[in-house]
Amino acid sequence: MIVNMSPKATEEQIQHVIERIKECGFQPHVIRGAERTVIGAVGTGGRRGELEALQVAPGVAALIPISQPFKLVGRELRRERTVVNVGGVPIGGDHWVVIAGPCSVESREQILETARGIKKYGASLLRGGAYKPRTSPYDFQGLGVEALELLKEARQETGLPIVTEVMSTEDVDVVSEYADMLQVGARNMQNFPLLRRLARANRPVLLKRGPSATVKEWLLAAEYLLSGGNPNVVLCERGIKGFDSELRNTFDLAAMALAKELSHLPVVADPSHGTGRRSVIPAMSRAAIAAGADGLMIEVHPCPERALSDGPQSLDLAGFAKLMAELDRPARTRAAAVRA
Amino acid sequence: MIVNMSPKATEEQIQHVIERIKECGFQPHVIRGAERTVIGAVGTGGRRGELEALQVAPGVAALIPISQPFKLVGRELRRERTVVNVGGVPIGGDHWVVIAGPCSVESREQILETARGIKKYGASLLRGGAYKPRTSPYDFQGLGVEALELLKEARQETGLPIVTEVMSTEDVDVVSEYADMLQVGARNMQNFPLLRRLARANRPVLLKRGPSATVKEWLLAAEYLLSGGNPNVVLCERGIKGFDSELRNTFDLAAMALAKELSHLPVVADPSHGTGRRSVIPAMSRAAIAAGADGLMIEVHPCPERALSDGPQSLDLAGFAKLMAELDRPARTRAAAVRA
Amino acid sequence: MIVNMSPKATEEQIQHVIERIKECGFQPHVIRGAERTVIGAVGTGGRRGELEALQVAPGVAALIPISQPFKLVGRELRRERTVVNVGGVPIGGDHWVVIAGPCSVESREQILETARGIKKYGASLLRGGAYKPRTSPYDFQGLGVEALELLKEARQETGLPIVTEVMSTEDVDVVSEYADMLQVGARNMQNFPLLRRLARANRPVLLKRGPSATVKEWLLAAEYLLSGGNPNVVLCERGIKGFDSELRNTFDLAAMALAKELSHLPVVADPSHGTGRRSVIPAMSRAAIAAGADGLMIEVHPCPERALSDGPQSLDLAGFAKLMAELDRPARTRAAAVRA
Amino acid sequence: MIVNMSPKATEEQIQHVIERIKECGFQPHVIRGAERTVIGAVGTGGRRGELEALQVAPGVAALIPISQPFKLVGRELRRERTVVNVGGVPIGGDHWVVIAGPCSVESREQILETARGIKKYGASLLRGGAYKPRTSPYDFQGLGVEALELLKEARQETGLPIVTEVMSTEDVDVVSEYADMLQVGARNMQNFPLLRRLARANRPVLLKRGPSATVKEWLLAAEYLLSGGNPNVVLCERGIKGFDSELRNTFDLAAMALAKELSHLPVVADPSHGTGRRSVIPAMSRAAIAAGADGLMIEVHPCPERALSDGPQSLDLAGFAKLMAELDRPARTRAAAVRA
Repeated sequence: MIVNMSPKATEEQIQHVIERIKECGFQPHVIRGAERTVIGAVGTGGRRGELEALQVAPGVAALIPISQPFKLVGRELRRERTVVNVGGVPIGGDHWVVIAGPCSVESREQILETARGIKKYGASLLRGGAYKPRTSPYDFQGLGVEALELLKEARQETGLPIVTEVMSTEDVDVVSEYADMLQVGARNMQNFPLLRRLARANRPVLLKRGPSATVKEWLLAAEYLLSGGNPNVVLCERGIKGFDSELRNTFDLAAMALAKELSHLPVVADPSHGTGRRSVIPAMSRAAIAAGADGLMIEVHPCPERALSDGPQSLDLAGFAKLMAELDRPARTRAAAVRA
Repeated sequence: MIVNMSPKATEEQIQHVIERIKECGFQPHVIRGAERTVIGAVGTGGRRGELEALQVAPGVAALIPISQPFKLVGRELRRERTVVNVGGVPIGGDHWVVIAGPCSVESREQILETARGIKKYGASLLRGGAYKPRTSPYDFQGLGVEALELLKEARQETGLPIVTEVMSTEDVDVVSEYADMLQVGARNMQNFPLLRRLARANRPVLLKRGPSATVKEWLLAAEYLLSGGNPNVVLCERGIKGFDSELRNTFDLAAMALAKELSHLPVVADPSHGTGRRSVIPAMSRAAIAAGADGLMIEVHPCPERALSDGPQSLDLAGFAKLMAELDRPARTRAAAVRA
Repeated sequence: MIVNMSPKATEEQIQHVIERIKECGFQPHVIRGAERTVIGAVGTGGRRGELEALQVAPGVAALIPISQPFKLVGRELRRERTVVNVGGVPIGGDHWVVIAGPCSVESREQILETARGIKKYGASLLRGGAYKPRTSPYDFQGLGVEALELLKEARQETGLPIVTEVMSTEDVDVVSEYADMLQVGARNMQNFPLLRRLARANRPVLLKRGPSATVKEWLLAAEYLLSGGNPNVVLCERGIKGFDSELRNTFDLAAMALAKELSHLPVVADPSHGTGRRSVIPAMSRAAIAAGADGLMIEVHPCPERALSDGPQSLDLAGFAKLMAELDRPARTRAAAVRA
Repeated sequence: MIVNMSPKATEEQIQHVIERIKECGFQPHVIRGAERTVIGAVGTGGRRGELEALQVAPGVAALIPISQPFKLVGRELRRERTVVNVGGVPIGGDHWVVIAGPCSVESREQILETARGIKKYGASLLRGGAYKPRTSPYDFQGLGVEALELLKEARQETGLPIVTEVMSTEDVDVVSEYADMLQVGARNMQNFPLLRRLARANRPVLLKRGPSATVKEWLLAAEYLLSGGNPNVVLCERGIKGFDSELRNTFDLAAMALAKELSHLPVVADPSHGTGRRSVIPAMSRAAIAAGADGLMIEVHPCPERALSDGPQSLDLAGFAKLMAELDRPARTRAAAVRA
């Protein structure tokens, strides 16, 4: 931590900061410049939280952190990339996977038709919501255990492992009985009791990025899982809140690339929520893979026009088939260099 | 709902939309323009959620909602403003109140000294965190029940009702035993299981706005509480995520004014979190009151420099005393009009 | 400047940074911690721009600036607040003023009626657009010199000094002939050729904050004016781009307070553009004054429903009269403290 | 345009809106629902700007536009995609191109070495700033005409056409003498006098997206160019202002995809400014191409660590060579579908 003193700081104020740094268990190191004094707090054993309150000590202009606050998810201690096994499907490593399925499980027919279709076209995991976080209390809230039963049936028939959201600590046990991977939705990224509970679950976790979370905040949410005992975490970029209402969210692929740079955890991308607009999902799926995504999460519904949730961002099966074919083809080629 | 057809929509596509509107329980009403056709879906008894999926029907350019999605929190059905009684203190109505106290309860001495001080200078309610949502798992997470006991002691001594955060459905009962008002933190604004549980609690709820929530999303979160049975809800604006790192958040007072226009619920403002910068808290407190806030929530700590959390945005007791004195004085006067 | 080396930086990389710091004209000062090394670059005479490129030197994790980049607009060198004289009306100091008028000058009758009305109710300066920055080329672009003539007539009749926008270096001379203050619109805040030209104009400048400008960027734009020779600058907060489409912009009063903390220049607030919603303008006008604004800029039109631009955010004269009366009355009073 | 009346609108207010719609040159079409009345304004010949002011007529809840405001840049009137010829290099069409070079032209040696290098590795156009928009007046502002001369020399030697920024109407003539394409920087996207002047220039224009511009605002800025007479416009996505300070901007590839959907103009992407972080530029370059970019704009400097501007986001020649090789190789392959 660096303490940047104000140009007007008195010698007494500087000494006070030096004393507090020692009290917090760090060694002070003073740089006296022409305009101002800067004091480094050196060491690893001190009480960092307490040190941060120095920001309001008299004469202090600003506190500047110099090390990353996350330990277990970062790459400083662990260089090799993590591969998470989800019901036999590895996420991370040399290949990328596709997780597909409807926003909500609506009926036996709907989920079975979807599961068969996405498997046929190459998806590796099935998604489907049983417990749905909905902005309005009057919207469809999911079928709960009934949906979990239907997902189980779909897995039995297709072999596709199941990814489904858990919204509450109370539901972790029942969802874990059925699901191969537990999803934490974007709005729960900083639901810390839920993260603490999932740290003790015996299932891998898909941790969606919150709509206004920085990459650091996202990685610190993952740190709750790893530090609590669950190393099997996959991150998922799904768009942040933006100012252009033409798209539901701002799909932030550079943040995904940054998360992969800072962390050893796999990162998948969800262009369905990330854009909310069916017409741009294929382009953004290709982009996500090209940017290094370890997987895609795609909403697919047999009849989006009749979906009970997220219809506008769902592909139908024909659309999904087309997308999968495109993902395996190379993109357009570069123009030949100009003639000198 | 208005269905805006693409200029290229075929007659068949138009007829399909008309049929679907009927199937969803609404009456279609067609306007044929020079460039395009627009179809209104009229009526109140239909299945709105299903109607929304029409956005992806062939030939549809966009769906345009024309009525507010919230019913109970809105002012269309209830014009008079709600006043919420918190342990004998009314929030809402003709006067404004101050809720003050530390971010976290840290010790008996700290909370009692704060409670006495804020009471002396005019606060009406005491805040203090027992369960703390912290970005990093390595930060101080609150004293839990021990903190609740200390808050109770502070109330016994000062008479100030207690406002404290509840983070989990499992803690609602124990926190309700001690607290006069249950706070939902910004990161839990769309924690729907928690909202559903609090709808059945016998305590008023302080609902903070999420850092990327629109006013509509905020009001719909409140709708979960009212529609579930708890009419005693106070909204709290506490800043949204912004692009200027000089301030912790962007304090959005116009959203507070808009919430008061659209809803009958009281709205208070939290300039401590809203700005994260002690130096601007007095100015923004005055601004919030002037903009019509029904109250202020202010972080106060006897020694911010040693606070275990949120020190940089906490006032000390002298700073709080000064703020309270300023709030009761009129602002600067207007310059005399120019001479003609 | 602080150079934060990566934990993996080699001794050779550290030496390289030390050499470069010297080459750029600063003194290096090394702090070796347990995990990493941090190097301060001390001194005032060096080439800061060149130093910044060190961010990509091998082994460098980050560069951390520790002093403010603006000199003339900041309060470190000049503590007393600036008062800008605009055609005899002082902006800044102990009182606040009101600048009012239509978005665009549309006709002789419109501008004269407005000028008379706003003067009657207490405005000190008249605003009105002659050259209009419009998002679409098909929208009304302003009457140009004809509008300037009408503004002059309005000043002759009412005595109100004129504030009007200049969009182009080529128009600075003609607008200066008529106007008492030259406005730089939000979209031109970083139009540097325009700023350089206005630095040589003999009129005070009203510098609106850009819709995505940080406070530092805003102050650096003002620094172009001061460093180029024009000390008569008034800043104007007018809202930043936000994610909630219910309001045209996010009115950022805390940024205004921060600008007043960091700079000695007067700052006024424009709640008309800042919110874009007529119903919340009175509340936000009161808030701006309470937060310390040196003035308000309010759009007023005799018949907003027929305005050629910005009708939805314009007050009519009756609305303006009501607002002005409210601004002179104290806000609601604080509730009595709770009974012990 | 749809006029959404308030549920409380009186019959008189409804009639007033109907009258005004007629006065503005449109045909009113009324839909009376159970809760509220909605009125369509049908026709193409009316005065749309005037109609918009109806938003503040008594009884009106909201105005809802239903057609796109841009005409010439949109795909409704012109389906085939535009290809822009820049000094013999086509932008748009079946292939993608690379524009590369330094942020600023700094010296003869620097620009020639860069030009040779980027040509060798496959770039088709050379970028380099002669007139630089800089946040601070104390930063390097570019070499002006001297830089243009050096760019000319680089073109003579390498054959690469030149793309360079023009910041002011006054410089359009001189820059046009030297450059093959005139760049409008992000901060000038809504500098309307500059756009009007460039509409009459005989050079193609590269129009960068403003940091807080919606896609519609961006396309309307392009509409200024096309409607003013210059059809040779290439759009450039270069990141929007975001809340995560780890990256300089939020690179918005979905907006690029949306721009290509709504407009026939070519769109290139600038991952250098779009992210501001060298380490993620290769990933985002691949992503941009995969998402359908018609080209990339990449900052390259022979020695980024000594660059006078934008060093941290510049690749050196070795980094550029590596990037170009990667862009021509397919990305990782998809995992085989799960075994049933």
